[in-house]
Amino acid sequence: MDVSETWEHLVQDGGSIVYVIIDGMGGLTDPRKGGTELQIAHTPNLDRIARGSSCGLLEVVGPGITPGSGPGHLALFGYDPLTYTPGRGVFSALGIDFALNQGDVAARVSFATLDREGRVVDRRAGRIDTETNRRLCKKIREAVKLDYEGLFFLETVSEHRAVVVLRGKNLGSRLRDTEPPRTGAHPLEPLGLDEDSKRTASIVRSFVDQARDILSDQERANMILLRGFDTYAPLPSLESRFGLRGVCIAEYPMYRGIGRLLGMRIESPPADIEASFRALSAIYGKKYDFFYLHIKEADSSGEDGDFERKVKVIERIDRLLPMVMELEPDVLVVTADHSTPVCMRSHSWHPVPLMIHSRVARVDEVDTFDEYACMRGSLGIRPGLHLMGLALAHAGRFMKYGA
Amino acid sequence: MDVSETWEHLVQDGGSIVYVIIDGMGGLTDPRKGGTELQIAHTPNLDRIARGSSCGLLEVVGPGITPGSGPGHLALFGYDPLTYTPGRGVFSALGIDFALNQGDVAARVSFATLDREGRVVDRRAGRIDTETNRRLCKKIREAVKLDYEGLFFLETVSEHRAVVVLRGKNLGSRLRDTEPPRTGAHPLEPLGLDEDSKRTASIVRSFVDQARDILSDQERANMILLRGFDTYAPLPSLESRFGLRGVCIAEYPMYRGIGRLLGMRIESPPADIEASFRALSAIYGKKYDFFYLHIKEADSSGEDGDFERKVKVIERIDRLLPMVMELEPDVLVVTADHSTPVCMRSHSWHPVPLMIHSRVARVDEVDTFDEYACMRGSLGIRPGLHLMGLALAHAGRFMKYGA
Repeated sequence: MDVSETWEHLVQDGGSIVYVIIDGMGGLTDPRKGGTELQIAHTPNLDRIARGSSCGLLEVVGPGITPGSGPGHLALFGYDPLTYTPGRGVFSALGIDFALNQGDVAARVSFATLDREGRVVDRRAGRIDTETNRRLCKKIREAVKLDYEGLFFLETVSEHRAVVVLRGKNLGSRLRDTEPPRTGAHPLEPLGLDEDSKRTASIVRSFVDQARDILSDQERANMILLRGFDTYAPLPSLESRFGLRGVCIAEYPMYRGIGRLLGMRIESPPADIEASFRALSAIYGKKYDFFYLHIKEADSSGEDGDFERKVKVIERIDRLLPMVMELEPDVLVVTADHSTPVCMRSHSWHPVPLMIHSRVARVDEVDTFDEYACMRGSLGIRPGLHLMGLALAHAGRFMKYGA
Repeated sequence: MDVSETWEHLVQDGGSIVYVIIDGMGGLTDPRKGGTELQIAHTPNLDRIARGSSCGLLEVVGPGITPGSGPGHLALFGYDPLTYTPGRGVFSALGIDFALNQGDVAARVSFATLDREGRVVDRRAGRIDTETNRRLCKKIREAVKLDYEGLFFLETVSEHRAVVVLRGKNLGSRLRDTEPPRTGAHPLEPLGLDEDSKRTASIVRSFVDQARDILSDQERANMILLRGFDTYAPLPSLESRFGLRGVCIAEYPMYRGIGRLLGMRIESPPADIEASFRALSAIYGKKYDFFYLHIKEADSSGEDGDFERKVKVIERIDRLLPMVMELEPDVLVVTADHSTPVCMRSHSWHPVPLMIHSRVARVDEVDTFDEYACMRGSLGIRPGLHLMGLALAHAGRFMKYGA
């Protein structure tokens, strides 16, 4: 039995838990700078909190596995990301704040360019801008007529990316992607693999055919390609599994979507990092037990390969952390959903620094918060899935196991 | 789901990986020498590579488990040795370079001594020498006539050990060992547990009876005992699982057998350690992605209890390592399939030192390559099964997991 299932049987009432998730915080050494982003950043508050914490490293999803944002967060929240695997279509819809209903079928959409023979020559339609995307989605929405008793939604994500959602009875999502595996090939016909999915495939076919007609006057974005079909079902909530009434503060929609997936209450999006911390202070209190604060910019600056900006973002977060300490939560966790080393300009598999600040933490000798200092911490290096159990334990939320 | 199964869904094309497996490299401190074999050996190159690597320790098969060569290597190659369990008969045949076909049934053979009442008094026949073994195998092969449409092979391993292989239609391997569990007992009758195995048992019975007659003039080796029946089926290859076109350079047949089991191309056996490294340099290039170099002598000297020799072997390997560094592989892994502490004269369960050298490794503070320094490495102590995932990740051979 997976250990995270055992936890559910031990849950009792207890103290408050705050997760500060600094997206993409872990990095690698830049020899020219003489350290990692986190080492170079001036972080007196992170370091001070580390001196009162148990520290360690989390291998968020698994050895060598580079977590996407969805699986990375699921692991941190105690949901085994190899077991809980919402599809890409669902994450796309959650990622634009789309309020999915149980049973909705979602898929990713790419605007693409077909040549005269109908072959895909650019599966990003020359990366059309988001405004063009919005205009084309609206145009399609207004013209398409589908012959079924249900609804369809077509929503812009950004650039060439959009998401389609079908809502109705007896829909299936065991559908083949219509995006061909390589450019130069024709789009694939929608193909359903079971009864419900076959019916759904015929709706999708009609949708795609009409969209193609509607887009026929476009030079670049003259087709849509669909992939990652999935049926939405909310996961067992944080409250049902761990008795936690959770609340999510996140500037970016993807992370609010993850909060929604786990049954958290979603705060209205803060405008920036400062506003995110202020929002936490404002709602902190008895109404919730679990506070999820997500900061995106460390990841974005890592993906942009901007060492200086990543350092600045970390320093900005550092200056705001006293606001969290003033709330005196029973447990404060600071960690990341994955590393985003500036030199790789992408998510990576490298373990992320972790600290658990609590009155009952086994405080170790780690006195600065970074990838190397945390190696010597009392939590060692461990799977991301362990975190929620440790957080609950430090909050006094677990009964003894057995007599 | 096991994490190594997840890897298969993430595989993409990427860089080259070199595994240098120093068999039995890990050891224990000899108080008279003041360190382990690896600590006492002068290893400037291993240490230099460590200074540019992520280091750690591998618990190759599991806590307290002393790996045989087969399971030890399977773990390092990303095959869970508790799931993939080729039988001992198959490993014996692979271990002498015998080219098994799918469906072949193999078993281990021991020449043994029976007393006048037919009881086993020495299950090693006084450890007859390998030459005698060869002569007796030939004698049996030439005289035995089996009444079935198929082939049988009887091949010397060494001393009293040999291997028998049956090749034909509808053979089974759910057969009881004929070697009794203790000396003083009679050999057991071959006993098949299903239809095919019953038919196979009757062939084996005829074979053993005839062999006993043929050996009746021998004083010591007057009987053969069989155990570890197994049907050969190649494992899913490194290429099918991880997209790796692998090649194996190994002086000893057992390790070429493991390479063959995983679908690697097998280089002709090098004459010694130097020739092994030269062979790697000669074949290194675009034709393969994965290079498995196996060095046996650290294990042999450990099993012989020869501290000085084990130190010398390690130093010899150290002097050759620059040849590998000159190839500039994307990932260089140096580790072992198990420890063989000189003071134990046997394989042991103690974790083995590991380093992963790569441009994207999180280089740690480990500056010498040994059992103690590696404890402070960034990879921590972890299961052997993790290694392949980490190697693939460092070679850029994994896509992101999830959105």
